[in-house]
Amino acid sequence: MPVVLDAQGRGMTHQPVSGNDLARFAGIPSFMRLPVHADAEGLDAAFVGVPMDHGTSWRPGARFGPQQIRTQSAMIRPYALQTGAAPFDGLTCADIGDVALSTFDLRAAIGAIETAYGAILSTGAVPMTMGGDHTVTLPILRATAARHGPVALVHVDAHADVNDEMFGARECHGTVFRRAYEEGLLIAPKVWQVGLRGTGYSAGDFDEPRGWGFNLVTAPELWHKSLTGLGEHIRAQIGAAKVYVSFDIDSLDPAFAPGTGTPEIGGLTVPQVLELIRALRGLQIVGCDLVEVAPPYDPSGNTALLAANLLFELLCILPGVPYR
Amino acid sequence: MPVVLDAQGRGMTHQPVSGNDLARFAGIPSFMRLPVHADAEGLDAAFVGVPMDHGTSWRPGARFGPQQIRTQSAMIRPYALQTGAAPFDGLTCADIGDVALSTFDLRAAIGAIETAYGAILSTGAVPMTMGGDHTVTLPILRATAARHGPVALVHVDAHADVNDEMFGARECHGTVFRRAYEEGLLIAPKVWQVGLRGTGYSAGDFDEPRGWGFNLVTAPELWHKSLTGLGEHIRAQIGAAKVYVSFDIDSLDPAFAPGTGTPEIGGLTVPQVLELIRALRGLQIVGCDLVEVAPPYDPSGNTALLAANLLFELLCILPGVPYR
Amino acid sequence: MPVVLDAQGRGMTHQPVSGNDLARFAGIPSFMRLPVHADAEGLDAAFVGVPMDHGTSWRPGARFGPQQIRTQSAMIRPYALQTGAAPFDGLTCADIGDVALSTFDLRAAIGAIETAYGAILSTGAVPMTMGGDHTVTLPILRATAARHGPVALVHVDAHADVNDEMFGARECHGTVFRRAYEEGLLIAPKVWQVGLRGTGYSAGDFDEPRGWGFNLVTAPELWHKSLTGLGEHIRAQIGAAKVYVSFDIDSLDPAFAPGTGTPEIGGLTVPQVLELIRALRGLQIVGCDLVEVAPPYDPSGNTALLAANLLFELLCILPGVPYR
Amino acid sequence: MPVVLDAQGRGMTHQPVSGNDLARFAGIPSFMRLPVHADAEGLDAAFVGVPMDHGTSWRPGARFGPQQIRTQSAMIRPYALQTGAAPFDGLTCADIGDVALSTFDLRAAIGAIETAYGAILSTGAVPMTMGGDHTVTLPILRATAARHGPVALVHVDAHADVNDEMFGARECHGTVFRRAYEEGLLIAPKVWQVGLRGTGYSAGDFDEPRGWGFNLVTAPELWHKSLTGLGEHIRAQIGAAKVYVSFDIDSLDPAFAPGTGTPEIGGLTVPQVLELIRALRGLQIVGCDLVEVAPPYDPSGNTALLAANLLFELLCILPGVPYR
Amino acid sequence: MPVVLDAQGRGMTHQPVSGNDLARFAGIPSFMRLPVHADAEGLDAAFVGVPMDHGTSWRPGARFGPQQIRTQSAMIRPYALQTGAAPFDGLTCADIGDVALSTFDLRAAIGAIETAYGAILSTGAVPMTMGGDHTVTLPILRATAARHGPVALVHVDAHADVNDEMFGARECHGTVFRRAYEEGLLIAPKVWQVGLRGTGYSAGDFDEPRGWGFNLVTAPELWHKSLTGLGEHIRAQIGAAKVYVSFDIDSLDPAFAPGTGTPEIGGLTVPQVLELIRALRGLQIVGCDLVEVAPPYDPSGNTALLAANLLFELLCILPGVPYR
Amino acid sequence: MPVVLDAQGRGMTHQPVSGNDLARFAGIPSFMRLPVHADAEGLDAAFVGVPMDHGTSWRPGARFGPQQIRTQSAMIRPYALQTGAAPFDGLTCADIGDVALSTFDLRAAIGAIETAYGAILSTGAVPMTMGGDHTVTLPILRATAARHGPVALVHVDAHADVNDEMFGARECHGTVFRRAYEEGLLIAPKVWQVGLRGTGYSAGDFDEPRGWGFNLVTAPELWHKSLTGLGEHIRAQIGAAKVYVSFDIDSLDPAFAPGTGTPEIGGLTVPQVLELIRALRGLQIVGCDLVEVAPPYDPSGNTALLAANLLFELLCILPGVPYR
Repeated sequence: MPVVLDAQGRGMTHQPVSGNDLARFAGIPSFMRLPVHADAEGLDAAFVGVPMDHGTSWRPGARFGPQQIRTQSAMIRPYALQTGAAPFDGLTCADIGDVALSTFDLRAAIGAIETAYGAILSTGAVPMTMGGDHTVTLPILRATAARHGPVALVHVDAHADVNDEMFGARECHGTVFRRAYEEGLLIAPKVWQVGLRGTGYSAGDFDEPRGWGFNLVTAPELWHKSLTGLGEHIRAQIGAAKVYVSFDIDSLDPAFAPGTGTPEIGGLTVPQVLELIRALRGLQIVGCDLVEVAPPYDPSGNTALLAANLLFELLCILPGVPYR
Repeated sequence: MPVVLDAQGRGMTHQPVSGNDLARFAGIPSFMRLPVHADAEGLDAAFVGVPMDHGTSWRPGARFGPQQIRTQSAMIRPYALQTGAAPFDGLTCADIGDVALSTFDLRAAIGAIETAYGAILSTGAVPMTMGGDHTVTLPILRATAARHGPVALVHVDAHADVNDEMFGARECHGTVFRRAYEEGLLIAPKVWQVGLRGTGYSAGDFDEPRGWGFNLVTAPELWHKSLTGLGEHIRAQIGAAKVYVSFDIDSLDPAFAPGTGTPEIGGLTVPQVLELIRALRGLQIVGCDLVEVAPPYDPSGNTALLAANLLFELLCILPGVPYR
Repeated sequence: MPVVLDAQGRGMTHQPVSGNDLARFAGIPSFMRLPVHADAEGLDAAFVGVPMDHGTSWRPGARFGPQQIRTQSAMIRPYALQTGAAPFDGLTCADIGDVALSTFDLRAAIGAIETAYGAILSTGAVPMTMGGDHTVTLPILRATAARHGPVALVHVDAHADVNDEMFGARECHGTVFRRAYEEGLLIAPKVWQVGLRGTGYSAGDFDEPRGWGFNLVTAPELWHKSLTGLGEHIRAQIGAAKVYVSFDIDSLDPAFAPGTGTPEIGGLTVPQVLELIRALRGLQIVGCDLVEVAPPYDPSGNTALLAANLLFELLCILPGVPYR
Repeated sequence: MPVVLDAQGRGMTHQPVSGNDLARFAGIPSFMRLPVHADAEGLDAAFVGVPMDHGTSWRPGARFGPQQIRTQSAMIRPYALQTGAAPFDGLTCADIGDVALSTFDLRAAIGAIETAYGAILSTGAVPMTMGGDHTVTLPILRATAARHGPVALVHVDAHADVNDEMFGARECHGTVFRRAYEEGLLIAPKVWQVGLRGTGYSAGDFDEPRGWGFNLVTAPELWHKSLTGLGEHIRAQIGAAKVYVSFDIDSLDPAFAPGTGTPEIGGLTVPQVLELIRALRGLQIVGCDLVEVAPPYDPSGNTALLAANLLFELLCILPGVPYR
Repeated sequence: MPVVLDAQGRGMTHQPVSGNDLARFAGIPSFMRLPVHADAEGLDAAFVGVPMDHGTSWRPGARFGPQQIRTQSAMIRPYALQTGAAPFDGLTCADIGDVALSTFDLRAAIGAIETAYGAILSTGAVPMTMGGDHTVTLPILRATAARHGPVALVHVDAHADVNDEMFGARECHGTVFRRAYEEGLLIAPKVWQVGLRGTGYSAGDFDEPRGWGFNLVTAPELWHKSLTGLGEHIRAQIGAAKVYVSFDIDSLDPAFAPGTGTPEIGGLTVPQVLELIRALRGLQIVGCDLVEVAPPYDPSGNTALLAANLLFELLCILPGVPYR
Repeated sequence: MPVVLDAQGRGMTHQPVSGNDLARFAGIPSFMRLPVHADAEGLDAAFVGVPMDHGTSWRPGARFGPQQIRTQSAMIRPYALQTGAAPFDGLTCADIGDVALSTFDLRAAIGAIETAYGAILSTGAVPMTMGGDHTVTLPILRATAARHGPVALVHVDAHADVNDEMFGARECHGTVFRRAYEEGLLIAPKVWQVGLRGTGYSAGDFDEPRGWGFNLVTAPELWHKSLTGLGEHIRAQIGAAKVYVSFDIDSLDPAFAPGTGTPEIGGLTVPQVLELIRALRGLQIVGCDLVEVAPPYDPSGNTALLAANLLFELLCILPGVPYR
């Protein structure tokens, strides 16, 4: 049958469609051209999009993030040659589409996300989120804590996102981790914020989260260095706690990730973030997100390509992934 | 259930997903967010992509055409307000994905397309093709003639595509309609080529197809004019014959369709091609294609938006579409 | 003094800064490089930006509209050569900056806009608005009706914007004129909606506003025609009533205005909209807006250049403008 | 010999290299892939670039105009199918490269251009100029008048370019035709300026050139109309006088020609300018230029493609071109 | 009063407008949304633009540099979190607009700049310049030496800019520091040129400035290294001398700064230049510039964002800035 | 004679045209503005383009690679300031244009390339190839082995390109080095593949080439390191054997080389590849290529600028180049 259907799941194993069966630019794009499921039932890991950007303060566009990440993910093949990870040999993975949410009402959207993730988490699947602006992490953490209790956090970002409010809004992309802390969603001493930099509204912007017990690592502390050591340290400190990984693409320098909403100069490099992720292998990860990809500022698609690869690398360190 | 799955078909009626159920930028994109089927069985009209560009002589990129047309088609709502057409109230439509074909071997690809369309046509569905470069029309016409016998043709294009060969190739985007004529796939006096213009390899480039009986209408003959009259004339001349509609996006002026492989100045306007299509209502159309959208030259997506709308307009004139 | 300050107003007449005094690409850009005022006090016409896009359903970016319109407006010189209009010889004009509003809360933003326009209108100045998505027109109409009573409306747009709600939102860019009608802000028989086209959620999308008394003119009715006649008819029908002009840049075909949030094919041409505006001269215009310019989809800036010129043309038909 | 050399001339006839001998994207680009000559000796028509933009007041970039026009001209085939013109069957044409001039000193550049064109014109060849900003026309007219005496002029442009000075400069892209008039280079009653529009520094900007005898035709006078009649009228009025054709790409609407330095809305369409050029056939043309293509604002290359085609159309109306 | 005016200065403290008072994309952009002053009177540091590019030899566009740097600077908040610098708590800063200069006459422009900077420097303010091509530094150094006598120089650049002339021009972007040396504007042994690389017109291009006493540090010497040590060495060597800092954005690798006129591969990284700047704290800086940002080659704006941040970092090391 | 002809060779020494004789953006572009020859006769090094992309599996566009590399190479001056190399003082170099090949038939194109390179190599010139997709290297290696016998190989790439077939094709951009190994074109133990990374179709993708004796060095092994040591090691291991250098631009991280067909994250940096190339000086290089530059994904041209510089650096290490 010469017409190939790639985003359907009927009669397919849960493997990405190969470029030798259907050209990489062909087919209806799901994440890595995995089967599409109606929900997370029966899955070990569920890729899910949260397309929104009404929580962003500068450049919009992250609403198109899931779409472009899926498109660019067609380039990724199933085996990680450098680490030996073979995620699809051990985990049942699928793309479960996007959360339906209001573009016009940020609060309603936050509520819809929490409900949707409650349903996903109830199946036991690990949600692998494609944002959307960083606001999405707050309702995800609420649903996560509701199921797992407070969690450790690895938060890779240019910004600490611990404002009390922005232009009167208490729930938007710059307030996520203060809210999460206040609501008891996090194990504060097991929170790591990596890649922070830039300018702030007061000289003491970082003092308060440090006072809560958060571990803040600024980008300048990391310049010119491998992050393998830091990653191993974090892994050791977090230990057996359940952990959530929130990855803002603006943690990377704009040279690597130009297509984002609030770029900051002097960021991490791609080798650094790959080292960091790979060193976290062994943690009890219960959810991951990759946020703030803004396609209108990334016509080549390379930022989304990077995001897709980082999601794949995060998949590779989930519990249960075999290594060859 | 807040996670909505838009490209699946299970439990959905065959209607486009509404923007009020799932934001237009959300979900895994099928054409107009219609259900995705594994094949054309049971369908009245089947949207199908043929992603390739190894038949093009200037700017490549049409391999990404189906992908971008699907993405932009999310903007289209189900009712044509100006004409009253309600295609989804009368026809069962779905997206059946892309033809699997070799990127490296143009001849093999042409063969694969003919086989795929044989299967589609055997179901009785009308194929609505998203190209790809114009080469795709040749194997589609072969499969069409195999099922329906020679057909009338409405061919809207800047170029007549009647070269004998290009750089030694006898089957590529510039030779399609000479091959089709030679192979007896067309009812020559019922062939209409509309929008021709530009420069040629000899002063008599247009004489030979006219000698075969083809009706050639150049763009300068149409400047400043409504095409309603021409469309009505073509409809009358073709009458009850089965007809194939092949639409090259470069028939339009590059101002309207910048993202294409071989743009020519002085082309048709969007009102003109809409008038032409709408005037063809009533013909026994057995297949349509929209080709040569090259996304790398169309970062805004507006060329693909136009292409998606033209495919929708073509759908609206298929036999059996109710008008309100 | 060689350092020139162009956006300040102290010691300057209220004329645009000339390109012979300061290069057009120099200086801090206000609209047409007019003086910047803190409020509308003492002005005949006040240019004001409303930078937001959380009311848009497809491509965001209109939040950067006022910024890019101001930048491109530096190309416009003070005299309209084709009509003889000399607006700055008769009216005192200035740029009063942007409305401060929340990016995160659409309802709060709508409230802030209404308050801001109440203040502007209380000075007697005519507000000339740079959007922003089309949502901005609703609070402006509320403030306008509060001051002037119900007004006639010339609404140039691809979309009628008369939905009852979009994804649960009753106040967003697609519901403006239904809300305005329901709230009694408009003189319904003196409402003209020009340029409508595209697809809809039901075959009867246009029937209901026609039932209210609105006059709807679709784009296909206007293809290939001068709009001078239509403009003169509208002017005659509206007569002495106070009138608001709301201009959505997507009324124009995407060939002319690619940088917008919800482009629709088959739109008006620039000559047509210029004819329409010029024919409206003589009406008692109490406010104008130009909305939906989305700079991320307009890297050349030409959409904003068009928008700036249309605002200038609207300025030229305000009461009190001398003609030479 | 499989390595083909396309820009050399040794052993080649003076025909464009065919796309069937060398792919259109291959080879070292001369205009239409004509032979490259060291000077104009022996040529009937000489294509020559004048790459500069220090005479422009808004967006620079025209310095890259000749390069991009040459690249895009590879798409043009040797016969004009609509008119039957076969220029290379009657005229010996070549590309003679670019004028060497200072990027840093506008006056020196103007002098260098005049000298260069003196040499070209001394051979009897008709110079076909690729600009560069419009300043280049002034020294070309000086050299032209030195050889031929005052000439008639067909000037197609958005702007009359008759300022007395711009920011103190008396020789730049906005003063060309005042200087040419003052210096007696033109036969004033046989000067036609077509496509004028936009805004001006005084209400009477157009009165003065009309006083000199110039014939000014604004774009609004031409909207919705064929220009064949205007072209025939100009041809009749100019009669047997020697004539220079200066074509500013900004005469066209920005929808057709976005990549230019000072775009103005409401311009001519491509059909209109093609009609105008074709109607001028029969005039004693002694030189042509196509100026103000600014590639940085035209990433698709479509503006340069249009410019290349217009130069070809101008070539087709030179004296001595056979028609088939 | 809901309409906020951000670029005016009346009644505002000299602090950047906060994103919590006016959205970052709103308002009329001055540098970091500081107050706009008519001149430098009373200021400690004056941000000033010099928009020109007629001194550039390859890609133009730097004339739009000040405009885009201002726009992107809206992202910067007032406190430098990594260093503790709080410049606005210690210095009175404002944006004083752009120098008015001729686009058509490079020599006249150079004269105008010198005059303008004489006026600025006479107030005692430190000028913080936004270029413009690198030519601007020559007249600024002339005005600086006229006030302060010969100065030390930290010049960060891909190119030494010590040509004797370029295409006959003795004053353009490639000759600045030879002219400055010849005119005695610099303390030669206290001149540091950092980041040099690329190709040259002779093998000994760097020998001559070394002979004058200049200290040249090529980029390859710095690859893979922190620049903190180099910065401290330069600070020690310059000691108490007055120093000017000239920063060409092309010192950075094109990966970080694609939008520039003469990019060179193999450049510095952002961490390196931040280390260098921060290590210079304590020097007696009397002026700074940031030049060669070419927006047409930087559609994302990220090059200008980098430039704005570097200017902010330079502000942070001016004498008198408090650290928290 | 003010009209300068830069791409001709008659009467010119074989030096690049200087920017002081003809502006860098002027003239008909050959590589580094060297003379254009009809063939390689008499040359030491011949720059030649192979414009094609029908061997690529993801983004097309490399067919425009030679054109854009030539254009950007105009920035390079003749002396390498950091190494002292003076290639044009020792070698006779020219640009011999592009190979004529079919765009429609990959196999025929591969044959045409082999024939063309047989002719080039028969002259004794070292071919310096501008791709085109990586498929071009296979026929070049065939012609090279035919003349020189099996060669050592330095292959810098993100991908090993050792697939057995791709979608049925045994000769395309992903199978080159398996075919070359099977055909005995290479000295397997002297093959070095540097920069490998990304994902694969099986966990053992790299095992098989290692079994053949190839030396594979992955990118992660090289992160944060100078490549000088690796380069010296390769030089020592290859010793006196004849060697071919094949450089895929995607070996570099997409931050440095966004414009390529199959980008992979985590790649080499520009300093690293410059160190690698410079350390190879002294090898008996018999051919070099630089492939996979895809201009449609590189609107700034910076990827091609990098490619042109890498070709120049490769030229600098050819046998016979003097150093100053």
